[in-house]
Amino acid sequence: MNIRTTIVCLPVQNLELTLNYYKHVFNISDIQIEEKIITVELPNLSLFLMLSDVYESYCQKTRRGIHYPKHNVGVIFSCALNTKLDVDTAIENSKIYGGDVPCEAEIDPSYGAYVGYISDPDGHIWELVHPNSQA
Amino acid sequence: MNIRTTIVCLPVQNLELTLNYYKHVFNISDIQIEEKIITVELPNLSLFLMLSDVYESYCQKTRRGIHYPKHNVGVIFSCALNTKLDVDTAIENSKIYGGDVPCEAEIDPSYGAYVGYISDPDGHIWELVHPNSQA
Repeated sequence: MNIRTTIVCLPVQNLELTLNYYKHVFNISDIQIEEKIITVELPNLSLFLMLSDVYESYCQKTRRGIHYPKHNVGVIFSCALNTKLDVDTAIENSKIYGGDVPCEAEIDPSYGAYVGYISDPDGHIWELVHPNSQA
Repeated sequence: MNIRTTIVCLPVQNLELTLNYYKHVFNISDIQIEEKIITVELPNLSLFLMLSDVYESYCQKTRRGIHYPKHNVGVIFSCALNTKLDVDTAIENSKIYGGDVPCEAEIDPSYGAYVGYISDPDGHIWELVHPNSQA
């Protein structure tokens, strides 16, 4: 099939909290809530963060329910960041803006990258990688 | 934070089956298995389809387990396709190559698009949309 565009849709329980989180942790000032959806444009990724009732109507069409990744995760978003400071700042902000930090950031011994993880207010997991931290 | 690139990582139980599925349903001939990962490049989306043990090592870092979307879905991938035939052909191929078709494709009365859904061998859900089918 010939695909024009692709959008990744995630469920969200509190749009205001999520808006604030992505504004500050991802440092994107111009996002907003429109028809119960927050659209986030990142390099090589378009996200629709959808309020649970909107997302649920999708799930129902596919005869499934909503899953929030509080205990088990079905998708992990991995980002390459420009600096180690970008990783550390995002980790610091994640806790401040209603998310979490599931583990300590550290240098990966296998390839020298600096790697941290954050979870947004609904538990969606982001891996933050600064590839050149050993240099 | 300044993001260079973003990759979306999904768990997979059988790499050969998944490779065959994405080759034929998505019509991508040049993908392969490398170090237990299949990389799929789509418009505005880079996917890592990871064998469960590799994916699990990610999850463990974030103190979570693996979720497969058999009953509840945490992410939906929505694609805009060029033709109605693209939607129908993908649906037909999804069943042939080890996936499923959770519901009938139909015209969405709210905006006239032709919309179908497929799930890959692990249950990952793709929404297939031909936006101009009413025209």
